[in-house]
Amino acid sequence: MDHITLNHGSGGRQMHELITDVFAKAFGDHTGNDDSAVFPSQGNIAFTTDSYVVSPLFFPGGNIGALAVSGTVNDLCTSGAKPAYLSCGLIIEDGFPMSDLKTIIETMAVYAERAGVRIITGDTKVVERGKADGIFINTAGVGFVPEGRRISSSLAADGDIIMITGETATHEMALFKARENPPFALDIESDVKPLSLEIAMLLEATDQIHCMKDPTRGGLAGVCREISMNSAIQIELEEDAIPVHRQVASACALLGFDPLYMANEGKMVIVGRPEIENAVKSVFPEACVIGIVKSGSGTFLRTTGGGLRRIGMLETTQLPRIC
Amino acid sequence: MDHITLNHGSGGRQMHELITDVFAKAFGDHTGNDDSAVFPSQGNIAFTTDSYVVSPLFFPGGNIGALAVSGTVNDLCTSGAKPAYLSCGLIIEDGFPMSDLKTIIETMAVYAERAGVRIITGDTKVVERGKADGIFINTAGVGFVPEGRRISSSLAADGDIIMITGETATHEMALFKARENPPFALDIESDVKPLSLEIAMLLEATDQIHCMKDPTRGGLAGVCREISMNSAIQIELEEDAIPVHRQVASACALLGFDPLYMANEGKMVIVGRPEIENAVKSVFPEACVIGIVKSGSGTFLRTTGGGLRRIGMLETTQLPRIC
Repeated sequence: MDHITLNHGSGGRQMHELITDVFAKAFGDHTGNDDSAVFPSQGNIAFTTDSYVVSPLFFPGGNIGALAVSGTVNDLCTSGAKPAYLSCGLIIEDGFPMSDLKTIIETMAVYAERAGVRIITGDTKVVERGKADGIFINTAGVGFVPEGRRISSSLAADGDIIMITGETATHEMALFKARENPPFALDIESDVKPLSLEIAMLLEATDQIHCMKDPTRGGLAGVCREISMNSAIQIELEEDAIPVHRQVASACALLGFDPLYMANEGKMVIVGRPEIENAVKSVFPEACVIGIVKSGSGTFLRTTGGGLRRIGMLETTQLPRIC
Repeated sequence: MDHITLNHGSGGRQMHELITDVFAKAFGDHTGNDDSAVFPSQGNIAFTTDSYVVSPLFFPGGNIGALAVSGTVNDLCTSGAKPAYLSCGLIIEDGFPMSDLKTIIETMAVYAERAGVRIITGDTKVVERGKADGIFINTAGVGFVPEGRRISSSLAADGDIIMITGETATHEMALFKARENPPFALDIESDVKPLSLEIAMLLEATDQIHCMKDPTRGGLAGVCREISMNSAIQIELEEDAIPVHRQVASACALLGFDPLYMANEGKMVIVGRPEIENAVKSVFPEACVIGIVKSGSGTFLRTTGGGLRRIGMLETTQLPRIC
């Protein structure tokens, strides 16, 4: 079969063949025969979910499958968990090319391997043509948090430093490039990547991290605002210190986008005591300190000109369907 | 706002308001502020996922929200787990009525309460008009399996009896009714219902259950075929013993549908030693024995006429998008 048809979602022979020939081949046999997978626990459990509706499905630096693994793995990391297991729920449009499905599923398997997680349970639904847009993927993730470890957006404290593990806004600009093919130089790719192995090393190296958030939808601004609100503290970011790829910064200036609000898929914002700086830089060589935490409230940007600008919530959508 | 717009999926203010005003209100505040929820473990963990794409979204006896909780809860039950936590991933079409979303979310909250589970993590994506069909919902579920309990589709054994907890084929026929408004009497509703409380009572009452499967897509036939294959045994069902609502049976005869392949959303097929019969009937008053397990292979139906018919896999789709 070259295309997905409604029969692949029926619970009959073709769905069975799809599971055997495509999913079990890519994810291994621990997807199992039963409706739920069972596994032993190791400490407290972290649980998260994301649906992925990115358009286009294939973009510079990745595809929806890379996103579906990386995004959920990175969300588990934010609670200090070691990501362990993923589910994979597919909603596919009738007529979707089988070869594209296989590429996406194989990408998921490769990224799961890199992230150190196993995809152990799944579900496939097929809807009629025109009732979805190619394929949507939901992954939920389970990870284990060692006893005593607490990392949360509510734990930032006065005197903490704020770091980011590399250049921001790259993923969303790569999506813009894939959709609009702009007439100026933009040699960038999405940063989509699971960060679980790096974060595990980092948490071995220091116990002074208070919060981690991956700046996806809503960008660095959204993440800092959440931390400020949830921790009831003030955040002050230093505009000059925020790393943005030169071409991304130029494109933002041309397009009227604000890179502070643009999504990443392979970066982490890390907040903790000042002594975390070396540990973070040893694991993430491109990391840098971009701000500080003070008592008070609100999120502010110290601009290049020296002024202090309040960072508000995103009021509209810069670019829809980036993840 | 009366309708969902792309801004509700942007990670900005409107998404924040949607979470606060609609989701946190319905599911409680344990949906939390962080990207993953963290909870303590109790024994082995069961993990499952399903996406729900049912059409229409509202049907006799339920709606997509009722399905999204019940289906995932019942999948957890099949492994002998006590369902505990659900995630909720929404993909919503731009322009979807806010009032419908609220109704669906409130239904999910009610069904979660009935099932004894909590919805603790979620995600919302919005896609452009024409790129989805109203709303799709993914739920993943986590439950706990007590040490020593093993229930699996691979554990049916020679001499076991096969029971079903009530009439089969009702959900799919209720969907047919909602879509086609047929010109004959069909006073039925979907059986959509979480079975977690009943299954918990049942597992207190007997330890002789070997497998449980909820006969959803693929119906009773699909479930029995899976048990037969996974356990490497033969199953013989008794046509006369299989409970089907009189009007559903008549409609199937008129339409050329086979009730054996039609989906339920609030029934369980239970396989175990013959002594389970009383325990199952005490918890599910409408339950009955519908077949037996023998050594051998294949799934067969002993017909009303006395013949033995092999039950094959569903080759096509009877009715798409029933769940």
